[in-house]
Amino acid sequence: MPPRYLSFRCSLPWLILLLQALLLAHSLLGLPGVVSNHRQSNFSFPVKLQDVNHMVIFGFGFFLMVLRRYGFSSTAFNFLLVVLGVQFSVLAEDLLIFLKTGEKYLSLFSLMKAVMSTTAVIISTGAVLGKANPGQLIVMTLVEILIFSVSRYINLTFLEVPENQALMHMHLFGAYFGLAVTSRFPEPPPGLDKHRSTPKSELFSMLGAVFVWVFWPSFSSILAEFPREAKLNTYLALAVSAVAAFMLSALTSKDGKFRMAHIRSAVLAGGVTISCAAHRVHHPWIAMILGLLATGITILASHCVQRCFNPALKLQDISGVHFTFGLPAVLGAVAAVVLKVVEEGTQTQWNDLSSLGYSIFVEVGAFCQTISTALITGLITGLILNIKLLKTVHVSKYFDDQFYWEFPHLSVGF
Amino acid sequence: MPPRYLSFRCSLPWLILLLQALLLAHSLLGLPGVVSNHRQSNFSFPVKLQDVNHMVIFGFGFFLMVLRRYGFSSTAFNFLLVVLGVQFSVLAEDLLIFLKTGEKYLSLFSLMKAVMSTTAVIISTGAVLGKANPGQLIVMTLVEILIFSVSRYINLTFLEVPENQALMHMHLFGAYFGLAVTSRFPEPPPGLDKHRSTPKSELFSMLGAVFVWVFWPSFSSILAEFPREAKLNTYLALAVSAVAAFMLSALTSKDGKFRMAHIRSAVLAGGVTISCAAHRVHHPWIAMILGLLATGITILASHCVQRCFNPALKLQDISGVHFTFGLPAVLGAVAAVVLKVVEEGTQTQWNDLSSLGYSIFVEVGAFCQTISTALITGLITGLILNIKLLKTVHVSKYFDDQFYWEFPHLSVGF
Amino acid sequence: MPPRYLSFRCSLPWLILLLQALLLAHSLLGLPGVVSNHRQSNFSFPVKLQDVNHMVIFGFGFFLMVLRRYGFSSTAFNFLLVVLGVQFSVLAEDLLIFLKTGEKYLSLFSLMKAVMSTTAVIISTGAVLGKANPGQLIVMTLVEILIFSVSRYINLTFLEVPENQALMHMHLFGAYFGLAVTSRFPEPPPGLDKHRSTPKSELFSMLGAVFVWVFWPSFSSILAEFPREAKLNTYLALAVSAVAAFMLSALTSKDGKFRMAHIRSAVLAGGVTISCAAHRVHHPWIAMILGLLATGITILASHCVQRCFNPALKLQDISGVHFTFGLPAVLGAVAAVVLKVVEEGTQTQWNDLSSLGYSIFVEVGAFCQTISTALITGLITGLILNIKLLKTVHVSKYFDDQFYWEFPHLSVGF
Repeated sequence: MPPRYLSFRCSLPWLILLLQALLLAHSLLGLPGVVSNHRQSNFSFPVKLQDVNHMVIFGFGFFLMVLRRYGFSSTAFNFLLVVLGVQFSVLAEDLLIFLKTGEKYLSLFSLMKAVMSTTAVIISTGAVLGKANPGQLIVMTLVEILIFSVSRYINLTFLEVPENQALMHMHLFGAYFGLAVTSRFPEPPPGLDKHRSTPKSELFSMLGAVFVWVFWPSFSSILAEFPREAKLNTYLALAVSAVAAFMLSALTSKDGKFRMAHIRSAVLAGGVTISCAAHRVHHPWIAMILGLLATGITILASHCVQRCFNPALKLQDISGVHFTFGLPAVLGAVAAVVLKVVEEGTQTQWNDLSSLGYSIFVEVGAFCQTISTALITGLITGLILNIKLLKTVHVSKYFDDQFYWEFPHLSVGF
Repeated sequence: MPPRYLSFRCSLPWLILLLQALLLAHSLLGLPGVVSNHRQSNFSFPVKLQDVNHMVIFGFGFFLMVLRRYGFSSTAFNFLLVVLGVQFSVLAEDLLIFLKTGEKYLSLFSLMKAVMSTTAVIISTGAVLGKANPGQLIVMTLVEILIFSVSRYINLTFLEVPENQALMHMHLFGAYFGLAVTSRFPEPPPGLDKHRSTPKSELFSMLGAVFVWVFWPSFSSILAEFPREAKLNTYLALAVSAVAAFMLSALTSKDGKFRMAHIRSAVLAGGVTISCAAHRVHHPWIAMILGLLATGITILASHCVQRCFNPALKLQDISGVHFTFGLPAVLGAVAAVVLKVVEEGTQTQWNDLSSLGYSIFVEVGAFCQTISTALITGLITGLILNIKLLKTVHVSKYFDDQFYWEFPHLSVGF
Repeated sequence: MPPRYLSFRCSLPWLILLLQALLLAHSLLGLPGVVSNHRQSNFSFPVKLQDVNHMVIFGFGFFLMVLRRYGFSSTAFNFLLVVLGVQFSVLAEDLLIFLKTGEKYLSLFSLMKAVMSTTAVIISTGAVLGKANPGQLIVMTLVEILIFSVSRYINLTFLEVPENQALMHMHLFGAYFGLAVTSRFPEPPPGLDKHRSTPKSELFSMLGAVFVWVFWPSFSSILAEFPREAKLNTYLALAVSAVAAFMLSALTSKDGKFRMAHIRSAVLAGGVTISCAAHRVHHPWIAMILGLLATGITILASHCVQRCFNPALKLQDISGVHFTFGLPAVLGAVAAVVLKVVEEGTQTQWNDLSSLGYSIFVEVGAFCQTISTALITGLITGLILNIKLLKTVHVSKYFDDQFYWEFPHLSVGF
């Protein structure tokens, strides 16, 4: 279908150019130069920016490489969305800061926050993996980053949630936004077998998952008040999570064999849970139990819920975003509330119930606000993405690199 | 054989669950919380914990991926043993500290020591690669970590070897423990060709070896008294080792071609040697000569010894553990003794021979204690692992992912 | 052809041995021990040495793995040249310092500079990828490192260019040296199809490119006066560069599809440009525009210039070194001059034109000296490499691992 290809050529590059010009103009007009604010004085930020980048670009890029004919697109589109998303996130953050205080600056710290909020986009990308074309993905990125910024702004301003906790809602927001978007895409026909994986693609995906696993303690402790404690707790939660993944994978699969998809998703579940609750976990055993519960939810839910729940909602969750990121994030949010109640209750000896009620209200409110914003705006975004202007991909072309990439492999280099 | 599979399902998950429950109980009862002791004040520990993790989980995981049909198991079982081993190592360390002083704490520093002592397990795993099932590997991990802790405790308490030097015996202990264990496993029949590698699997293994190489200077200098000097010396030893690997590989192979297996093993040999002797090397040229000797021993021994020695002892060393880790570690231990004699002898102008003799006795004693403990307990562990209860793998099922992993590759994700 | 193989065996190992003995002798006689000079007090050097190593050995090693039958050689020869080049670079540096001041020391800092100057060799290697045998590559490495040291020494002494800026000419020097060398190699016949890539080899190459991308901000800011600013600007330039790569790839290719070779090369272009100009860029938007221009030059030039220019000069640029490193480095050098003129002009309000003229003369002089030295010595080196003594590879054996590597894959390990 040459006409389809040509029209793809006529739209996408200009969309990217327009965006980049906008971002450039913002940088030219809006940013008065690099300001080194006092928070930069922490010596390990530069190292951590690199770690977060490594995790987001390299780790998630290869983690998503599960489909046998979608390796180029998984890695490269992830890369494109991160570099575009980070720039747009700086812009969005800037607009909100402008609304609030009027001061603007660009620092390594703000760049790092931008990379972290882009993680939400990557998680959502996993849900529409292979279904959305690059144009749709870019539009989704812009909408999602803007809405996530607004959602965090609401949590920050009206519910007085600290900034680092608001940012840690990214797993929750990303997973449910992505699931809502993917529910608006037509399902591939049952006969299509391109969404299978091969042992080779699973190996690359495992490579990515191990990378993400190793960098998770840094990621989770960047914004923490007590980084060492957060790092230690995250490591323990991840370790228990990985052990439990092997155990439950052998228990739930036929013949007691392991399944790579279980391991790959479940080793990260503990990390997702602890990221949302890290600021309340003050004892290793709590972290370990959270890691255990997270893996349990991930693997068990994948058996029960996916068979009953997803077909009913016409939800096709190719890379298991709901179980890898969604449910563990909900668990983490619930755990944070419970731990807060126990902590404050013990402190006040259960006397000051009104103050306790207020802090529960704030936590639960922030959680509900985030998840409902994600679901509602995700549905709307899904509808927007399927308008004709964006040249939706036909279901027969799903999950296929050849639709987006040249495969000359005759002349190397240029 | 469905009965076999079902029985595998009935045993392994419960073994893992039992262990994890034990570790959780220890954490709940035994650890009074995260203590930030003064050694933590060193700013670079968090970074180094991540480096060590990267090297151990990612690097060694892919380094072991040499067998053409054993990629999933090599990477994933390595991951499982590390996360389980680290937790168990914290527990074992805690018991020994309790015996000694009664004070207990959990810090990033103790976690890092736990990751390092787990390296011994990974080296041993390389020796039984493809022969042991996950249950056997887990039992081996527990036994090895316990005995390695006891061995270090003996060195520390009775021979007054500093803790960081005692920990650096891990290569020596791991290699000979693993070789002793593997000698008790039945040999695969000569016709079985599953223990071959393919160019693809060798490439992944090279990827892992390069990763380990890059992180080795950090690894080797973590516990050193003068980290900068140790890092510099380690880098030089590794560099010379890599250069010599290419030279000797071309010299020893037919037609003067290179052999990837040589390169892969020998580039690490210099690192192993220098790890054992780093605290005594105070001049770059000593490090360089040690790197050269280590590679020489690795490649030459692989030609002469393996053909005469291994068949006699019925030793099948699939991934070359003896030559990559065992012999270079012996060289390093010998070098440490020689350098100590020269150093102390020069200081006292060879007058105080009794003090010199005592310090030689301590070094040689620690070395002999470690290696003999490794060999004896390894043999016993090998016998234990082959009892019927642990469901040993039949030789015809050696080196095969399909025995442990589901290969559905029909439905992606969960 | 057994005689050819045997002769290869007789020469190469001894060449390596001779070199290593020389380097060892230098270390024994010339280096009075590890001196911890004051520049070492910067806490992040150890981490950065590891980062640079990771980028150079792992990143570039896999980045070069584009040819479908040259994976082993690309990765392993890159490794060999780095470890040999670093040692030789320390020696060369030492000789020049000796000429100048007479003081000699070896520190992590000098090791890091050595790794960085070896980057020039790796870039040149990309240009002769698959054409030169290991012996030729080693000779090329030695000559190039020596000449690059001399070239930097000239810039440093006569033109008073600061050391860190002189070192950043490595992309420029490496690219044009490599192109001049490769122009003296006979072209492969048009029928030979071994210099194609496969989707698998492109994926590995993309893996390497992403690795290099992530480490580039560290790499580019190591020697900068204001590391944070340099890191931030580099990140922005790289991000814009990556976005523009996708845009221009879709615009220039048939059917509006992406081409992996474009993406792979162009994502690094912004980094190369900004490395050369980083010390003059004091505002994010300048970095972003440089990133955009760099990618534009890379992708557009690959269409126009390569078709007209390269055949005329009989230049075969297998891995696109000219477009990935050469032209962006020229752009960076030009940008540095322009930015300096604007900066100094604004400061003096365009009054002190003679001082301005002098500083332009210095910048342009350093650039011209570097590029002309690279081209002339590169041509001479190319002629030297093709003498009979070095056993040039016949064109029919180009791009083939089997010429250099054993493929037994019958017995694993040793």
